[in-house]
Amino acid sequence: MITYPSKIFEDAVNEFARLPGIGRKSALRMVLFMLKQDVSTVQHFSETIQRLRAEIKYCNHCHNISETEICSICADNKRDKNLLCIVENVRDVIAIENTQQYRGLYHVLGGIISPLDGIGPAQLNIQSLIDKATSGQIKEVVMALATTMEGDTTVFYLYKKLHPLGVSITTIARGVSVGGEIEYADEITLGRSILNRVAYENSITK
Amino acid sequence: MITYPSKIFEDAVNEFARLPGIGRKSALRMVLFMLKQDVSTVQHFSETIQRLRAEIKYCNHCHNISETEICSICADNKRDKNLLCIVENVRDVIAIENTQQYRGLYHVLGGIISPLDGIGPAQLNIQSLIDKATSGQIKEVVMALATTMEGDTTVFYLYKKLHPLGVSITTIARGVSVGGEIEYADEITLGRSILNRVAYENSITK
Repeated sequence: MITYPSKIFEDAVNEFARLPGIGRKSALRMVLFMLKQDVSTVQHFSETIQRLRAEIKYCNHCHNISETEICSICADNKRDKNLLCIVENVRDVIAIENTQQYRGLYHVLGGIISPLDGIGPAQLNIQSLIDKATSGQIKEVVMALATTMEGDTTVFYLYKKLHPLGVSITTIARGVSVGGEIEYADEITLGRSILNRVAYENSITK
Repeated sequence: MITYPSKIFEDAVNEFARLPGIGRKSALRMVLFMLKQDVSTVQHFSETIQRLRAEIKYCNHCHNISETEICSICADNKRDKNLLCIVENVRDVIAIENTQQYRGLYHVLGGIISPLDGIGPAQLNIQSLIDKATSGQIKEVVMALATTMEGDTTVFYLYKKLHPLGVSITTIARGVSVGGEIEYADEITLGRSILNRVAYENSITK
């Protein structure tokens, strides 16, 4: 156990070391970095994090993060309210939004079904999704979940729940990435990219 | 440029991204981690960092971090005040203290001489070191600086300043690390470890 020159110094190292992906060496670097900053800079850092936690809520409709009860995406009248994209978390919403290729709404599950981790449908935002589908507003649901066993299980579970409600289910395309070399693509991805080939006219990014 | 779902969210990502070694993806993970914590946990994190910056000073004697004007090492009467270890920064003090093999005092330079980065003797805690040596209290100075061009230049500069004052100058031993394989040691290190060989009785860790 490493000893540090003061209690408050050690407390600060411990706080930084709780952040995801940060070990004790990195935490020490961060503490020394903070000590070199102006008092006002450190105060701003610290206040921003407190404000973040106090002001960010989750959207009542899609469970995305939001400063208001309904997030700016759900509140946007120009969005296609018949189209819903299912994602695992907020990071996925940010990634898809930044492609600027999607104009529907989102539904953030808050995780995926993983019996080994004790996560079943009850732990996820699934009932609110079924309620939305039951109300008849949604025509198509796009599944944008990981192609892992857990992701596939979740998609299958949702398919069984949503398909009988007359919702058409699609999944995002899997294939060789744009700019990727054919010879280095793994067999499953390459196989899928051949099975799900698209007409040339549709293959050009708009 | 990635867009984020809210202004305060984006501000928080930017604040975390300023930390050393943290890119925007890691900063995003940290923001989402913070959002999942209790309000009281986030408040504690934020207050600890503000307290750190407000309460940690630099020791008037050795420039190590301290909660008081004189740090606990300099104030410790059981320490050998004739022996001074020269280090680049606070991390080095922590590392040497944790070996529990050193009972003298420290002097933190706050950097090393690096003309290319515009760091000369005037930018470092060198005058206070010369003053200490001039006062006649120090018998031996142990150089624990990096064996880079900058480190060697700094050691040479300090040697020229301190040796005429009757201070004996030593450097920490360089050699094959304990547990290290001889065949994988680099030539310079292995060469030095042979030149600076020690009597067997002195080679056993106490």
